[in-house]
Amino acid sequence: MIEANRPDLQSWVDIPADSDFPIQNLPFGVFSSAERSARPGVAIGDQILDLQAVAEQGLLDGLGCERTDFAQPTLNAFIDRGKAATRAVRGRVSELLREGSDLAAEAASVLVAQAEAILHLPVHIGDYTDFYSSEDHARNVGKMFRDPDNALLPNWKHIPVGYHGRASSIVVSGTPIKRPHGQTRPNDSEPPVYGPSRLLDFELEMAFVTHPGKPLGDSISTEEADDYIFGLALFNDWSARDIQKWEYVPLGPFLGKNFGSSMSPWIVTLDALEPYRVPGPLQDPEVLPYLAYEGDAHYDVALQVEIISESGAGKTVCQSNFKHMYWNMRQQLAHHAVNGCNIRGGDVMASGTISGPEPGSYGSMLEISW
Amino acid sequence: MIEANRPDLQSWVDIPADSDFPIQNLPFGVFSSAERSARPGVAIGDQILDLQAVAEQGLLDGLGCERTDFAQPTLNAFIDRGKAATRAVRGRVSELLREGSDLAAEAASVLVAQAEAILHLPVHIGDYTDFYSSEDHARNVGKMFRDPDNALLPNWKHIPVGYHGRASSIVVSGTPIKRPHGQTRPNDSEPPVYGPSRLLDFELEMAFVTHPGKPLGDSISTEEADDYIFGLALFNDWSARDIQKWEYVPLGPFLGKNFGSSMSPWIVTLDALEPYRVPGPLQDPEVLPYLAYEGDAHYDVALQVEIISESGAGKTVCQSNFKHMYWNMRQQLAHHAVNGCNIRGGDVMASGTISGPEPGSYGSMLEISW
Repeated sequence: MIEANRPDLQSWVDIPADSDFPIQNLPFGVFSSAERSARPGVAIGDQILDLQAVAEQGLLDGLGCERTDFAQPTLNAFIDRGKAATRAVRGRVSELLREGSDLAAEAASVLVAQAEAILHLPVHIGDYTDFYSSEDHARNVGKMFRDPDNALLPNWKHIPVGYHGRASSIVVSGTPIKRPHGQTRPNDSEPPVYGPSRLLDFELEMAFVTHPGKPLGDSISTEEADDYIFGLALFNDWSARDIQKWEYVPLGPFLGKNFGSSMSPWIVTLDALEPYRVPGPLQDPEVLPYLAYEGDAHYDVALQVEIISESGAGKTVCQSNFKHMYWNMRQQLAHHAVNGCNIRGGDVMASGTISGPEPGSYGSMLEISW
Repeated sequence: MIEANRPDLQSWVDIPADSDFPIQNLPFGVFSSAERSARPGVAIGDQILDLQAVAEQGLLDGLGCERTDFAQPTLNAFIDRGKAATRAVRGRVSELLREGSDLAAEAASVLVAQAEAILHLPVHIGDYTDFYSSEDHARNVGKMFRDPDNALLPNWKHIPVGYHGRASSIVVSGTPIKRPHGQTRPNDSEPPVYGPSRLLDFELEMAFVTHPGKPLGDSISTEEADDYIFGLALFNDWSARDIQKWEYVPLGPFLGKNFGSSMSPWIVTLDALEPYRVPGPLQDPEVLPYLAYEGDAHYDVALQVEIISESGAGKTVCQSNFKHMYWNMRQQLAHHAVNGCNIRGGDVMASGTISGPEPGSYGSMLEISW
C-alpha cells in the first residue's frame, strides 16, 4: 500500500467531517490569493497547502523536482517530472500534514483558506481527447439516433472510440460559459438557420491528466499506462446538441463542443484512487492483445450532477459512477498511443459521458429527457 | 499595395532564378546552425536572415515587438504581437534586403546559408484544426464511400466541415514518419486485426497560422478574419486509410491521422500572397450571412506532390492549386469562432485535401488510385 493512502492517517489540520479532502486524498491544483500569485497547492480539508512556499522552505528538496517547478502558474513543470517525483511529493506532503509531524509549524504557516483563494485551471493542456467509453451512454445515443436493435456501432466493442477536442476552450469549473450561436437545421425540409443553440447540454465525465509519454513513433502498453497517468479531474463536456447534430457527419463533433469545457480545479492523483479499484465489465468479444489488461483497472467513484437555477434552487438530475465505464483508462491510453501518437505532460483525456444502467444515472440531458 | 510586395524590388542578395524566396516573399521560419541556437529567421534566396541577430542590432526596434521576441525557438512571441507588428517587421526586413539599403552590411553580416542550417517546426501549435473544404475532394470521397448520386452530404455546402486534430504530432517537413500500427477490419465478416497500416496515404493541404483571436465567447467576422491570419504553410496530413475506415464512425478521424502530420518550415505571410488573390467559386446555395464575404479571398498557389523512392527516383503524382477550395480561410475562421471558440496565436488550421477537378490534380493517393 502507498504510505500516504493508509486509512489510519490523521491530520493536524482540522478537517470537516464531510470533506472530500482528507489526508488520504491530497489533490493538486493551482490557486492564487490577495498575497499570492498563481501557484501549485494541495487541498486538505478546507485549506490549501502553498507548495511554492513549502518548496522555498526546502521541504520538497531531494524528491526529483526543482524548487522552480512550484513557482509556476500551472502544474506542468511538476507533472513533467514523472510519476516517481509526483508520488514522492504527495508522500512528503502527507508527512507534513499528518499528526505528530515535526514540521507541522512550517506547514501550518503556509496554509491558505480555500475561501480566500481563487482556483485556476491546473494545467496548460497541450492536447485534449474525448473518449466515448460508457456502454450505457453509447447504447442510449445509438437507440435514439440510429437503430434501436443495433444501437452500438460495429467498432464500439473493439476500440475505445475517441476524438480530438479543443484544448483552448477548456476552463476551470465555475467559469461562465456563454450560450453558443451557430448553424442548425431544425427542419430537414428547410435550409439551415443561424442563431443561439436551443439544446445546450452537459455531459458528466471524468478526465485524466498525463505525465509525458514516449517519443513520436512509440506506443504505450496497458501494463505501462498507469505510470503515465498523473491524476483525474471532473469534467463537463458542454454540448450544443442542435449544432452537433447538423455538423457532425462525417468528421465528428466540432462547434457543438468547442465553445467550452469545464474541468475541476483539483486533480486527484491516480495513487489516491488506489483503494477504489474495482473490476471492470467482462469485455465480450475479447479485445485484441494490445487492449488486454490484468487486474482491476476501473474505479469506484460516485458522481452526481446538480443543476442550480438562478434563484439558487438546486436539483440533482443524475447519480452515476465512474465504475460504469466499459473501456478503462489503461485501454484508452494504450489505444491512443498504439499508432505512435506522442503524449505530452498535461494532456487531458476525458471519459465521455458516464451513464449508468438506470435512468437516474444517465449523464446527459440528452438521455435524461429521452 | 503593400510596399514589400512591389514587383520592381530587387535584393542585393544573390537569388537563384528559380527561387521560391525572392524579396517579395520573405517567409518566416525557425532555424539553427552550428553557431546559432534555434531562432526566428527570414528566407531570402538560399540564405536566411537571422532575426535574433538583426533584433540585437536594434534594427527591429520601434515596430511593435520586443527584441526578446526573436530570442525564442518558435515564432509564437512574434506572432502574438499581431498583424500590425508582423507586417511592420516584414516591411523592415524588405528594406534591409533591398538594393541600395544603407544597412546592407549589417544585414549581410547575419545571413546564414540554408545549406548550413537546420530548419525547425516554426510555431508551438496550441490547437490544430483540419477542414474538408475542397469540393472535388469531398465529392470524390463521397462517390467512393457513400452514394455516387449524392456524393456531398447535406451539410457540406452550408458549413466548412472541419474537425480537431492532434497538435503534438505535427512535425516539420522532412522528419521521418513511422508507419503506424493499429486496428483495422480488412474483412467485414471477420473480427478486426492488429498490424501495420497497409494503406498509408498523404494529403496535399495548405495550413494557416493564426494571430491571437478574441476571448472565449466572442466571434470573428469574415471581414475581420484576414487580420487574424499570420501566414500559410504547406501541410501533409498523413493518413492511414485502413485504420481511419474502421474507427471514424461516428466521431471522426483519430488514430488514422494523429500519428504524424508534416508542416513546411517556412510560413509565407498572408501579406505576401496579396498579389495572388483570385475570386472563389460561386457558392450555391447561398451561405448564411455570417459566412458571406466580399472581394477575392481565394489564392492562386500552384502545388504539386512528388514521391521519391529509396533509390532517389522521383515521380510527380499530383498537380493542384489552392484556388480550388470551395470554402476560403475567412469562412473557415469565421465559422470556427462563430460559437465563441477562442483562437490563440500559433493555432494551425489546415485546408483538407486540395483536389482539383482533373484526375491529375487529385491530392491524395485514395483518389489517385481510385
